[in-house]
Amino acid sequence: MLYGQVHLTLPAWVHDAVDTARTYPRDEDKVTLAIALSRGNIEAGTGGPFGAAVFGPGDRIVAAGVNVVLPQHSSLAHAENMAYMLAQQRLQRARINQDDSGTRDGPYTLATSAQPCCQCFGATIWAGIDRLLIGARADDVEALTEFDEGPLPADWVGELERRGIAVVRDVHREGARAVLAAYGSGGGRHY
Amino acid sequence: MLYGQVHLTLPAWVHDAVDTARTYPRDEDKVTLAIALSRGNIEAGTGGPFGAAVFGPGDRIVAAGVNVVLPQHSSLAHAENMAYMLAQQRLQRARINQDDSGTRDGPYTLATSAQPCCQCFGATIWAGIDRLLIGARADDVEALTEFDEGPLPADWVGELERRGIAVVRDVHREGARAVLAAYGSGGGRHY
Repeated sequence: MLYGQVHLTLPAWVHDAVDTARTYPRDEDKVTLAIALSRGNIEAGTGGPFGAAVFGPGDRIVAAGVNVVLPQHSSLAHAENMAYMLAQQRLQRARINQDDSGTRDGPYTLATSAQPCCQCFGATIWAGIDRLLIGARADDVEALTEFDEGPLPADWVGELERRGIAVVRDVHREGARAVLAAYGSGGGRHY
Repeated sequence: MLYGQVHLTLPAWVHDAVDTARTYPRDEDKVTLAIALSRGNIEAGTGGPFGAAVFGPGDRIVAAGVNVVLPQHSSLAHAENMAYMLAQQRLQRARINQDDSGTRDGPYTLATSAQPCCQCFGATIWAGIDRLLIGARADDVEALTEFDEGPLPADWVGELERRGIAVVRDVHREGARAVLAAYGSGGGRHY
């Protein structure tokens, strides 16, 4: 008998923590939400210290994600991947910024509290976003926590930009680092 | 209102196509199943021409996966990722070859009909497998179909092997190529 269902769930507290009525116009507004999700996730004990969100036309939120790897038994369930999967299932499209006939809208932006690891880098190539906003650097993650970011192409920023994905780094880097530091020093349950 | 559920399903025909009672002792046996899944997926019209399976102790099947990207609206739902997620949720572990306290068993092997793309390469780093068996090469995928494999680290095989994942390529490569060629020439619905 094969196991036939993958089921992943956004923790319940995220629904209360995200204001879907407002807009998030600036890059800093978008990353501030991703960092708040990363902090909320360690405070609630629902996963690792990472948060992300997809924003669409009008700077409105399309989907939010947090790391639920250990509690939901899925190495795929990083914050960025959760946000991508939830955005795609909500929009009923395999690529966020185009329908299955190739008609595009947007722009769509992913904001993430920390640089995507090797897995989320690869997922970002196919997810269908136009902009990627990053808080903490990979070096911050590896210096402040026990997490490993994995092997990336040497010019990972260039690989994204050549595929039409603009990359902005160090947005509220210090705020993102503070959550990682709190987690690394035992401020949250270890996932 | 946020969308809060990710739900992905193995197509119903896969349950009939996979004999879970038998063992798959040789590398060739394992990849033969992955290739059969890739062919079945284009014949059934349930996704792209890619199949994969995770095998565990005793050379028994733990999970099977096929590409369901377009029909299920998820750029994450490549064959390898489906097999990893289904294996992890079945075993109730975030890493296939160890429990959450770090106790290991195995070996666990992923067999895939074609070389993992950039996204599935990254997922393979974290999934918890000991061996990776590959049918067709990335060059075959890109020559025979319109799929793009994306950017990998220059020494992607070495990156996996340094993390304890043995890589075996070109297992039944011609059989895997034949499915890609059938798909590329219009033998299947285009997903």
